Amino acid sequence: MSYEVKSLNEECGIFGVWGHPDAARVTYFGLHSLQHRGQEGAGIVANHEGKLSGYRDLGLLSEVFKDDRDLENLQGSAAIGHVRYATAGNGSVDNIQPFLFKFYDCSCGLAHNGNLTNARSLRTELERDGAIFHSNSDTEILMHLIRRSKADNWLDQLKEALNTVQGGFAYILMREDCMVAALDANGFRPLAIGQMKNGAYVIASETCALEVIGAEFVRDVQPGEIIIVNDEGFTVDHFTEETQHAICSMEYVYFARPDSNIAGVNVHTARKNMGRRLAKEAPVDADMVIGVPNSSLSAASGFSEASGIPYEMGLVKNQYIARTFIQPTQELREQGVRMKLSAVRGVVEGKKVIMVDDSIVRGTTSRRIVQLLKEAGAKEVHVRIASPPLKYPCFYGIDIQTRKELIAANHTIAEICECIGADSLNFLSEEGLIDAIGLDFDAPYSGLCMAYFNGDYPTPLYDYEEQYQASLKEKVSFFNL
Amino acid sequence: MSYEVKSLNEECGIFGVWGHPDAARVTYFGLHSLQHRGQEGAGIVANHEGKLSGYRDLGLLSEVFKDDRDLENLQGSAAIGHVRYATAGNGSVDNIQPFLFKFYDCSCGLAHNGNLTNARSLRTELERDGAIFHSNSDTEILMHLIRRSKADNWLDQLKEALNTVQGGFAYILMREDCMVAALDANGFRPLAIGQMKNGAYVIASETCALEVIGAEFVRDVQPGEIIIVNDEGFTVDHFTEETQHAICSMEYVYFARPDSNIAGVNVHTARKNMGRRLAKEAPVDADMVIGVPNSSLSAASGFSEASGIPYEMGLVKNQYIARTFIQPTQELREQGVRMKLSAVRGVVEGKKVIMVDDSIVRGTTSRRIVQLLKEAGAKEVHVRIASPPLKYPCFYGIDIQTRKELIAANHTIAEICECIGADSLNFLSEEGLIDAIGLDFDAPYSGLCMAYFNGDYPTPLYDYEEQYQASLKEKVSFFNL
Amino acid sequence: MSYEVKSLNEECGIFGVWGHPDAARVTYFGLHSLQHRGQEGAGIVANHEGKLSGYRDLGLLSEVFKDDRDLENLQGSAAIGHVRYATAGNGSVDNIQPFLFKFYDCSCGLAHNGNLTNARSLRTELERDGAIFHSNSDTEILMHLIRRSKADNWLDQLKEALNTVQGGFAYILMREDCMVAALDANGFRPLAIGQMKNGAYVIASETCALEVIGAEFVRDVQPGEIIIVNDEGFTVDHFTEETQHAICSMEYVYFARPDSNIAGVNVHTARKNMGRRLAKEAPVDADMVIGVPNSSLSAASGFSEASGIPYEMGLVKNQYIARTFIQPTQELREQGVRMKLSAVRGVVEGKKVIMVDDSIVRGTTSRRIVQLLKEAGAKEVHVRIASPPLKYPCFYGIDIQTRKELIAANHTIAEICECIGADSLNFLSEEGLIDAIGLDFDAPYSGLCMAYFNGDYPTPLYDYEEQYQASLKEKVSFFNL
Amino acid sequence: MSYEVKSLNEECGIFGVWGHPDAARVTYFGLHSLQHRGQEGAGIVANHEGKLSGYRDLGLLSEVFKDDRDLENLQGSAAIGHVRYATAGNGSVDNIQPFLFKFYDCSCGLAHNGNLTNARSLRTELERDGAIFHSNSDTEILMHLIRRSKADNWLDQLKEALNTVQGGFAYILMREDCMVAALDANGFRPLAIGQMKNGAYVIASETCALEVIGAEFVRDVQPGEIIIVNDEGFTVDHFTEETQHAICSMEYVYFARPDSNIAGVNVHTARKNMGRRLAKEAPVDADMVIGVPNSSLSAASGFSEASGIPYEMGLVKNQYIARTFIQPTQELREQGVRMKLSAVRGVVEGKKVIMVDDSIVRGTTSRRIVQLLKEAGAKEVHVRIASPPLKYPCFYGIDIQTRKELIAANHTIAEICECIGADSLNFLSEEGLIDAIGLDFDAPYSGLCMAYFNGDYPTPLYDYEEQYQASLKEKVSFFNL
Repeated sequence: MSYEVKSLNEECGIFGVWGHPDAARVTYFGLHSLQHRGQEGAGIVANHEGKLSGYRDLGLLSEVFKDDRDLENLQGSAAIGHVRYATAGNGSVDNIQPFLFKFYDCSCGLAHNGNLTNARSLRTELERDGAIFHSNSDTEILMHLIRRSKADNWLDQLKEALNTVQGGFAYILMREDCMVAALDANGFRPLAIGQMKNGAYVIASETCALEVIGAEFVRDVQPGEIIIVNDEGFTVDHFTEETQHAICSMEYVYFARPDSNIAGVNVHTARKNMGRRLAKEAPVDADMVIGVPNSSLSAASGFSEASGIPYEMGLVKNQYIARTFIQPTQELREQGVRMKLSAVRGVVEGKKVIMVDDSIVRGTTSRRIVQLLKEAGAKEVHVRIASPPLKYPCFYGIDIQTRKELIAANHTIAEICECIGADSLNFLSEEGLIDAIGLDFDAPYSGLCMAYFNGDYPTPLYDYEEQYQASLKEKVSFFNL
Repeated sequence: MSYEVKSLNEECGIFGVWGHPDAARVTYFGLHSLQHRGQEGAGIVANHEGKLSGYRDLGLLSEVFKDDRDLENLQGSAAIGHVRYATAGNGSVDNIQPFLFKFYDCSCGLAHNGNLTNARSLRTELERDGAIFHSNSDTEILMHLIRRSKADNWLDQLKEALNTVQGGFAYILMREDCMVAALDANGFRPLAIGQMKNGAYVIASETCALEVIGAEFVRDVQPGEIIIVNDEGFTVDHFTEETQHAICSMEYVYFARPDSNIAGVNVHTARKNMGRRLAKEAPVDADMVIGVPNSSLSAASGFSEASGIPYEMGLVKNQYIARTFIQPTQELREQGVRMKLSAVRGVVEGKKVIMVDDSIVRGTTSRRIVQLLKEAGAKEVHVRIASPPLKYPCFYGIDIQTRKELIAANHTIAEICECIGADSLNFLSEEGLIDAIGLDFDAPYSGLCMAYFNGDYPTPLYDYEEQYQASLKEKVSFFNL
Repeated sequence: MSYEVKSLNEECGIFGVWGHPDAARVTYFGLHSLQHRGQEGAGIVANHEGKLSGYRDLGLLSEVFKDDRDLENLQGSAAIGHVRYATAGNGSVDNIQPFLFKFYDCSCGLAHNGNLTNARSLRTELERDGAIFHSNSDTEILMHLIRRSKADNWLDQLKEALNTVQGGFAYILMREDCMVAALDANGFRPLAIGQMKNGAYVIASETCALEVIGAEFVRDVQPGEIIIVNDEGFTVDHFTEETQHAICSMEYVYFARPDSNIAGVNVHTARKNMGRRLAKEAPVDADMVIGVPNSSLSAASGFSEASGIPYEMGLVKNQYIARTFIQPTQELREQGVRMKLSAVRGVVEGKKVIMVDDSIVRGTTSRRIVQLLKEAGAKEVHVRIASPPLKYPCFYGIDIQTRKELIAANHTIAEICECIGADSLNFLSEEGLIDAIGLDFDAPYSGLCMAYFNGDYPTPLYDYEEQYQASLKEKVSFFNL
Repeated sequence: MSYEVKSLNEECGIFGVWGHPDAARVTYFGLHSLQHRGQEGAGIVANHEGKLSGYRDLGLLSEVFKDDRDLENLQGSAAIGHVRYATAGNGSVDNIQPFLFKFYDCSCGLAHNGNLTNARSLRTELERDGAIFHSNSDTEILMHLIRRSKADNWLDQLKEALNTVQGGFAYILMREDCMVAALDANGFRPLAIGQMKNGAYVIASETCALEVIGAEFVRDVQPGEIIIVNDEGFTVDHFTEETQHAICSMEYVYFARPDSNIAGVNVHTARKNMGRRLAKEAPVDADMVIGVPNSSLSAASGFSEASGIPYEMGLVKNQYIARTFIQPTQELREQGVRMKLSAVRGVVEGKKVIMVDDSIVRGTTSRRIVQLLKEAGAKEVHVRIASPPLKYPCFYGIDIQTRKELIAANHTIAEICECIGADSLNFLSEEGLIDAIGLDFDAPYSGLCMAYFNGDYPTPLYDYEEQYQASLKEKVSFFNL
């Protein structure tokens, strides 16, 4: 959703099914509903009576699997799939998942959503001991750990490996005889279990993937759990008992699809509540409320309802993908922006508007949208952000790894307001966010990870500690960007 | 906008610019904002100091023009472009426009939006006289008429040709020394003139294409007008004085982008008004109002405001294009539907919902959405359609050419309600639609074409008359479809 | 055959079959054996019980028809096909044949090999009368003439059209009820009839296309003939009685495949005879005879046998297509040449070699090959050309339309020898060529067209006359090219 | 060279250059001349001041590197490249070389030509010890051995690894600071060093790759040698002193390009000598000698000269690649054969012909060619094979790993003659082959590997021993194939 203009990137969506005659196709449908979690590449590994085969490539799911034959080649009654998030430089197919490992004694598929905090040191250590990596991805590490484990059986090997990696992770493994899912000890990333009408079990990053294939929600995977699915059903095991809930709050704010539920909370409803609360925390007199499409529409309608100010479609998003050509002149560059988002002159001209957005990263997008609205004749533009200021990097699977790219880490709210050219600017409070989501786990922040807002990381940072400490001392001015 | 699930198809979007150093790129931006008017193919013809060159292909604009070089090959300070609507069978590049004609004495580009009602008889007549056509498109006819005209100069030849063709049309021609636009005598299709900051004149199917390139709206092209643009500016001429306004009301209801203005009326505002009026004409007690994304969101928010019933996001549209594979089983076919649109269980479960849609064609889409909502737990689904029942075919540029595909031509509202499985169903009245749009031309229906609703065609039907009369006698049951 | 380094281009190969259940596939096989006659594009039009369908695109046959489905879409028991020659600039798919014309009353496919000498004036005349052309190709002219003819039936219309066009042409038309072939009054281009084992009749530019599909040779199409093939067999008609044989001698020298027979003469045998005769006309003492692959190998082996000097493989042609990149330095440009052709140092080092080639156009290729041989250590390089000097342009279907590109039109043999860096140079005499081929028609030069060598054109030049007269006065030095 | 119809496949060609500003382009040229050694895939790894980057894909070189930009992305003054041989099933890009390994402490590119005889056991052993392989290729093994070696420095690690792998191999490694080549202890595969005019050193599978880039031959790499190339020039080291020459005789017979020299012997000359010797060993009275294009033309001309029987072009090979479609009928399948090779009726009709071929594998190709010649009217066809009968599999890099596919392992010469439908059949003797090549190493068979002919393998067979012993007992009849 509006991923083109936002520099936040989720790290991937994963899906698996065991027990459906057309498993690859089911996985295709599931991944399609998770496409918002990753657009760089996609892949599927299928299991046909213990024989694994896979296909993966760069591009959107519909570009990777172009016609029926691409799926028909992936025969089998079980399959796992992956969509990978988009980054600029590292576009090698070697990084596209699921990985498919073939050994003299077995085969194994592996899909991963998250980020390891001790990946660099584990990788160096493994390489020093002769390991050869074939991708830049953290994901390979788990398999090297498994294969080098001296434990007696695969499950103990897996547990040993899962206790060695640190950070945020949701894994799905396809073995010849079962499918296995595992979630990190803090449950940073969402992962849900569902069941299809024919009895097949499904595991997916978001519940919207269950809905799309007509599966019924069974339960969320809990922190520290290992779920083993085979022809007998599924069993639950643990690789650790030291767990807590620290669910990524940005899943509710921005990443997840509004029709998904996370920990029992509907994402659209949570966002609408954020908007309602924001209307109370930071009211303003205006003619209309406008949401930035598509991710902020829920929050905007909540703001509208709570404030009684009408909700209008003042911004239109072009649903068609625009290629970003090298644009020779400043004039054409600005037109490029307008290709993605247009202000509706007939709606906003001469009006005071409240522009509701879900978050501000660098501020450049907000600045452009405020400008679009003013050029279209808006008299005043009051920006209301339905989450607290983003001030700290994330090391558990969201692509903000330096404070340098965060305007709120470097500027006061008044400065940001000036920088984006708004007539006023307010953010939702931390308490407001926690209340709006409404979890009630017996854990800090009711079970949310709020680290991006307050720097309170639920785990040690391992390989990132040094870099993090250094970043706390850096300051960058966003006024000239 | 949700064109994948609707069987209504607009026939094309057109764009032209004269006087910009990067005319092809400006045209690319303009066409991108008109992409919703046609997804089958796209093309651009550029004019470089009197030398015309063109490129066109099947696919979305971003597929046809893949990289910068594709545009760089189209040098010139003037250009016209076209996006063509999607149909199933006829996918030949020969039909993709603009057409580029090269003669011993001159060259000419031609782009067309609309449908001619005497195309078949003109074509046969021309072929009997030795003409050779190279496409299935009506568009070639105009050029044959021009080239065969015995009039003294090109403008008189053009006028003669424009008086020979009948039906709905908006043309843009690129000549070596000027760009020419023409609109049929009833003004069925929208066509607007704008001006860029550097003075370049632009002509486009919708005003959203002016906004996207930063051009200012100048005026609409009026019925029967010929607009001639060259380095001196633009001049207005006429090919007929017998004109009236019969603007396609479906542009307001469904086709046009909400940020466009047609005849001075903003489309989003018109739709919101339709929703407001509908709330008054057909009120119902419920927990929430839900719009079918994306084209019905404006009407739904209007309905919500007028009724005081909260507006909720009960349906989510997947923004990513889904390939329609051959799906072997009924189960998977239903999953295919869900790939495009999902009901949000967390929102609708146990609730009475009002589902607002812009129109019903065959009823199959409505039936599926009602079913989605009920499967997601909605207690009651009350369908409210923000336009009158579609009962008659269109011959002026919308792809409904037989009554057989219209459920409202074949069934009462009560039957339709049963057929789609709704708890209640109401349509907006004709008066309601006319009032909501709010035109005030001195013409029937205040200047709108309402023929799809009431069969009152503003012109003779020519080649279609016989087929139309026959269709009035046909009846089809939609219950088993 | 070594078409990459030669600037002579044949204009196209054509093929047709009537009466085979898999007609498109038979046509594919036939065209494959004619691929040397054209590499720019290819196409097939099939006839399925009177319904014509076609496919064509730029590229080699194997690039145009990429998989089985491309052929399966072309159902029918009759088909015609075309391969088009490669030129630099004009690469539009609009020019790729066969053309498929669809009219209100019938459909017609058309494939053409040759060049019309009055095309420009016919085209202008037709356009003045309202005709619209859709390609740059001469081929469309015939169809415009047919459609505009006032004659009573299609055959008389065709005859009238064939008597209007002038120059060299071999046509195959696919009508709904028959296939028709026609050859110009001088028989410039070869065209043969064959019969498959199942009785199907085949028409092809060269007899090698009959061999490849297992068809038996029936007869050559004669000058001025119209061949009509339908389910009853084939019948012979004439559009003119004023005919003679003036068969393109360059077909024997260079264009045709060595396994083809033209007018009963095997091309390899004719070439070997040219080599034998050349050995007698221009003997030289040397260690070995080397042919320039692939077109000169026959002549070289003839030279070797007649002279008793051993035939060696001193030049090796790389069978794989090399892309010509933009090569930044002179050093790399020379390496580019070597990618196509290598001299075998182990064979030629320290030896006196006779290098036999079929013809010299600009001399640049000869110069490079002589240089390659000398760099590989050849002590002497004596060049022997198995045809007379090319001095005059061709207007009947070979792509030499100006004397400026012919070194022999601008320089003496001694000058050419110096220019290409050879130790000696000789050409075959005109009499030698005529005797080597050995036709015995009662016509000038025994039935050959020798115009490229002596300027004796068998017909008026029409539109080319003026340009030709001017070219006789031009002189260009090739020493600095 | 007629690789489409021969089931012998060379395993790859390799190339490397150090010290040229445009190293990737030089490598492209070099690989192009080695394309006959592998058509499945190609790749290049370039070294830009210690930074390695690579590109590889399935397809011919010209398909992998489609335009200038593909090479421009591979900046650097050193590069290695690889072309991989074509097999049916295993078409994964993961197997395409050079491999590019990236470690925390360095990067390394690796290209390999050959086959390891202890690959399977090494791989299993390494996997048992935790190694993860990412391709099916033997090539990865070397890198795992290097990385796991406990030796002090990279050179000793490499030597240890090279002493662990067994079989036939030629490696080129690209390190950050040097390029390294190594050849197995028996020198099965050819590998030559050259020097460009600018001083850059080049290493290539065949000397034809030196010629194509204008490099001068310096020396062959000798068995057991390690060649280290850096900015100082090249140095020679050894990983073993226990070496001998056992050069693959099939390189001379069939694989290598005729313009290459191996161990100082020109391949065309060797083949011509094989033909001469064959003429003496197995004379026959006939009208003409015909070579099977392209690999047998040298031997055929040698046979012709020694016998005094004229050499004719009785078979023509179509230079254009033919796609092999699924051909529904036997009739069309035969036409498919003819697409690749045609018999020239005008040459062979009514004649006794000697058909010279380089080798017989299954006999199916020979049978088809004999049939083609007879259908074209040849009165008698006497087949002469310019090498001894192939009876034993190869384990050092040629793709014949079972005796089942070898007709001569299963049938007498008289039976083969009957099977292929020839009037007589003779093979060259082993002595004849050794003499014709004319090496004089102090080693068995003058330094040739003759194992395919006589089962005398120069090394133990390791992992293949068991399979080999079993194969000696198998018999298959080729009469019904």
